[in-house]
Formats: sequence, C-alpha cells, structure tokens
Amino acid sequence: MTLASLVNHQVRLAQRPEGMATRDHWKFTTEAVAEPGEGGVLVQVLMLSLDPAMRGWMNEGKSYIPPVEIDAVMRAGGIGRVIASRTPAFAVGDTVYGTLDAQEYKVFAPQDIRRAGLVKVDLAMGSATQWLNVLGMPGMTGYFGLLDIGAPQPGQTVVVSGAAGAVGQTVGQLAKIKGSRAVGIAGGAAKCAWVVNELGFDACIDYKAGPNAVREGLKEHCPKGVDVYFDNVGGDILDAVLARLAMKARIVICGAISQYNNRNSAPAAGPKNYLSLLVHRARMEGMVVFDYADRYPQAIAEMSAYLKNGRMKSREDVVQGLENFPEALTRLFSGANFGKLVLEVARA
Amino acid sequence: MTLASLVNHQVRLAQRPEGMATRDHWKFTTEAVAEPGEGGVLVQVLMLSLDPAMRGWMNEGKSYIPPVEIDAVMRAGGIGRVIASRTPAFAVGDTVYGTLDAQEYKVFAPQDIRRAGLVKVDLAMGSATQWLNVLGMPGMTGYFGLLDIGAPQPGQTVVVSGAAGAVGQTVGQLAKIKGSRAVGIAGGAAKCAWVVNELGFDACIDYKAGPNAVREGLKEHCPKGVDVYFDNVGGDILDAVLARLAMKARIVICGAISQYNNRNSAPAAGPKNYLSLLVHRARMEGMVVFDYADRYPQAIAEMSAYLKNGRMKSREDVVQGLENFPEALTRLFSGANFGKLVLEVARA
Repeated sequence: MTLASLVNHQVRLAQRPEGMATRDHWKFTTEAVAEPGEGGVLVQVLMLSLDPAMRGWMNEGKSYIPPVEIDAVMRAGGIGRVIASRTPAFAVGDTVYGTLDAQEYKVFAPQDIRRAGLVKVDLAMGSATQWLNVLGMPGMTGYFGLLDIGAPQPGQTVVVSGAAGAVGQTVGQLAKIKGSRAVGIAGGAAKCAWVVNELGFDACIDYKAGPNAVREGLKEHCPKGVDVYFDNVGGDILDAVLARLAMKARIVICGAISQYNNRNSAPAAGPKNYLSLLVHRARMEGMVVFDYADRYPQAIAEMSAYLKNGRMKSREDVVQGLENFPEALTRLFSGANFGKLVLEVARA
Repeated sequence: MTLASLVNHQVRLAQRPEGMATRDHWKFTTEAVAEPGEGGVLVQVLMLSLDPAMRGWMNEGKSYIPPVEIDAVMRAGGIGRVIASRTPAFAVGDTVYGTLDAQEYKVFAPQDIRRAGLVKVDLAMGSATQWLNVLGMPGMTGYFGLLDIGAPQPGQTVVVSGAAGAVGQTVGQLAKIKGSRAVGIAGGAAKCAWVVNELGFDACIDYKAGPNAVREGLKEHCPKGVDVYFDNVGGDILDAVLARLAMKARIVICGAISQYNNRNSAPAAGPKNYLSLLVHRARMEGMVVFDYADRYPQAIAEMSAYLKNGRMKSREDVVQGLENFPEALTRLFSGANFGKLVLEVARA
C-alpha cells in the first residue's frame, strides 16, 4: 500500500454553535494523504482526546489560544504512529503525542512539528489511553493546578468537581498521595462509588442526588471547611463550595463545563458567593496547563511511577470511530462519559 | 463638671434593614456616664469613622466579625480623648483611637481596652481626621491590600474603584509612590478631577458618565491591561475590569459597596467574567485589614512621612452631630461623600 492510496477522513467545523454543538455544526471531508516533505513527518492518528476545552475553541474571539477557524479541521490532541518520516527526530513506528486534530492522518512540515507539540511517547510508561489521561494534558492540568496553585498541606481538605473525569481523578488521587483528604463531586452513584472504592477518595458527593446534595455533602464531609477547591465545573457547585471555605482557602479555576454551552455567547454565571473570598481571606486563581510545558517531563515521570506502583489508577471511556466525533463530544457536557473520554480513530 | 452629670447619647440598632438602612432602623438612647473601674478608662468620643463595612455588621449571620446585636450601640471606630483614667496606660488628655461606637462616651473595663484596640495616637503624625483615614483602618486596608496582595511592580497599571474614597485615595497615591501607574474609577467629574489633579493619578474614569464609560475608559487608560485591580465596589465595574486583565493580574477583593444593600439578604451579583481569571492566569484574593494589625505601626510611620513630605494628600468629608448618624451613613452608598466620611461627635 502506497501513501498515495490512503484517504484522510476529517471532521471540520462547519459553523459556530450557539449552545450545545450538534452534528449540523460539523462537516466531514476527505482528502488524499500527502507525502511528508524534507524534514517532515506523517502520522496516523490512533486516538483523540475529547476535552471540555474544545467547546471554547469553537467560539469566536480571544481566549488563551485562537479559535478554530470555520472550515478548518477541528483541533484535537491525540496519540498517533509515525508512518513516514524525513527527519531523524522520528522513526517509522514511533508512537507520538501532539495536536493531531480530528482526522485520520496528519502530515507535518518541519515548522509544524514544534507548534503541534509533537513528541515521542514511551508506552512502557503508560498505555496510549493513559498518555491522553494521567500522563497527558488532563493529568498535567491536575498535577500543576493542584500542587502549584492549590498547594494543599498534609491533612488539609481538597475538593474536586468532575471527580470521575480526566482531571478530577488525577487531582483527588494526587491529593491523597500528598497526604491531604480528598472529597470528590461527581454525577451519579456509580461514579461516586468508583471514586471512593477504586480511587480511594475519602468521600464523593453525588450532585445529582438532590437540589441540596452538594451543600449538605460539603457540610458532612468537610467539617473544617474546604482548604483547596479544584473547580472544573463552575455554576452552582462553585457557589456551594464558596459557602464552605476554610480560612486562606485556594480555589483553582481550571474550567467551568456547566457554563460552556450558554446560549448567545452569554458569559458564565458569576459566583454569587465570591465575597466569601474576603471573609475567608481566600484566593481564586486561574491556570492554563501549557504554562507548565517545560516541567511536564518531571511530572510525567512521577505520575508514571504512581501508575506502576498502583498508587494511581486511571479510567478511560473509549468511543470508537471518527464518524462518531460529534456525538462523542456532547457526552462530556451531559456527563455521560465515565472517565477520560477518548475517541479511537484506528486500532493501535 | 463631674462625670456623673454627663449624659451619654447613643445610637443603637433597632432592627436589621433589608436594603438601605433608614432612620427607622436606629434608635436614640441616653444613659448616665459611668466612672471607670480599677484599671479602666473613660473616653469622650470626638470623631467616628463611617465605613461601608458597617452595613455588613448590621446583617445577621457569620462574617469576618460578629454582627451588631439588636439594641446594641452601633459598632464604630473613632478618635476620642481620655477624660478619666485608672490605668497607667492612659492619661487624662490622651488622644486615642479604637472601637468607641456610635455614642458620646465609652467607659472601658480593663479587659475591654485590648478588645477595642484602644491605642494612643500622636497628633504630630497626622490630624485626628487623618488618623481615621490614611493613618487609620482605610489607610491600612489600602496599604496592605495593595502592597501585600496586589504587589504591583514598577510600571504596572493599578486600577482602584472608589478612588476618591478613603481606601481608594490611599491605594492610588501609594501605587504612584511605588512607581506604578494609577487609574481611578470614581463617580462624577469633580471627584475625577480631584483624583487626577490633586492626588496625581494618571487618569480617572467617571463611572457615571455613561453606560460604557468604564469599559471605554479602561480601554483608553489601560492599553496593556490591568495588572492590579483594587476592588471596593463589585458589580458591573468588577466585571468590566475582569474583561481587561493583563496576564498574571491580581484582583484585591476589599469590598463590594454596590452589593451591600441588596434586598432580602440576596447574595452579591457574581462576577460574570470570572473565567477571565483562567484566560489570564490571574488571581482574585480577599483581604481583611485586621490580619495585619501587628504591622500597623510600621505602615503608619511610613504613611505619616508621606503626609508630611507632601507625597500623599488626604481628604475627609466631615458631617457634624451624632444625631445625623443615620443619614450620614447612607451618603456612603449613594456616593454623596467626597473623601473619607467622618462624623464629628464633639469638637476636639
């Protein structure tokens, strides 16, 4: 089989959604696979990471990275395999991580290799799905957000929302490893049971259990208040935690998935209880994982060791087929995924 | 004149207000002035500090200090003169600062002296009104909030709301002294002119000049974004500043006067643009001045020197007569005061 005979199926952004994205906001295209030029590399996409941040990339306007342009292939991080190389940096057969986008193949010109963050990954350190989870962007987000911004002390109470999700599972387990108490917030009894029984959190609050479930759960499980809150969701849950802060608490603002599909580009619902920051001399701070890129290797090595010695577990929710990209992405926002959501594009 | 012949007029909290406090929420009482016991002291109240925080003290429920009880004399900091003393710590004629409350005389038992923070003040370091302003709680709030929490670097842009008020005038002038740019936000052309022409701020935005005045003013006067925002007001102005943050910005949450009179104890309007903290890796942190009490003397000495060498100016808005306490307090919330609001209870 020559490269020229390969067809690249792609998912492109057809129009910017108001509210939740549906299949109508995407279009599917095909094109021939190009040979890499001098210094370039061709990667077959194996798995794509589906992340809440993608919803933000679909909106117009300035954010921490530029939006995906209309008609462009949707931006996505993923794991792939090198199938042609004209650079000594990569050999055919190498497993790589980088911005591969929602497609089956990506050809990189030399200047694009660095821009896409293309790096070799060692499958001895973790599986391909773990490289998109604990060892990938969500894991790095949890690691640096918790340790650098949240900075929990031993014995302090760390609360994390989206506890069964990609970032949340890392945050809670890492909090435990570092000697803190970990209290999760997740949707549904099954996720909560897994977070406590498998991941070893001290408690998990099911936010779907009733209108006062979070408030009452925090009161029960955080009797001395919340020292660190790692916020992935925003909205009412953020307000409930603000009402339970300990003195000098730190809130890590990592995301606000409950607010990403607001219609008409309405801003997020603001945290009504933010003056609790004043009463408790507390701090709310935003973080973007890319700022820590030069420290990823050390963090990955540490996390890989935890995976190997069993102190950290991971769970991925794998959906198969690039054609299912639109529906798979919406599962993040309904909370239907259980674990880090991954789209398998080709068998490894 | 014997002490026994003195009558102490007092203002007590009659009922907790919903929304703005009116005269109906207060009652006026009189009682005889008691002699101080062994180790105690009797102080005649000269001036009281009227502060936005007082509105919070009138509400039920936990905050950074307990609420004022119904029928209690309203809590207020003030300047007074010792008129009888049975402790070597104070002599008759000493000028003192402390929690004197809304009344004409306060007798302190020994254990109350420390609780009320009663200290001698040196009128050579600043006038009595300055001791309630730059050298008092508002000045200390501005000093530690700006320098410890905001931590502006030379050349960075500091924005402060309530710029003509007690805290705001200190924050902006101190920012200039430390080499930063200072941009104020105040209500009305007269206040803005004073802030720029007298206090030396680089610019001042009149938030009453139109619905987009703050947004456009920030764009014009903070072309590189806002590095430090010292927030005294909350509400729409906080949102407008959030939309103009520089990377790694710090927001000092000192108060939210726009939200203190919300009806039915409704929480503050939350900052809708809080996700700007994420985009800009920025921080929002609450502060309460009492935490810095052990560092007041050094800060007061520094500020007194600035007053003397003319690098810092102060303006106080003095209302006369304890009987005018209710109406004077409401001036804070309409923005009718121009400078630090002080109630003169007796001539010094």
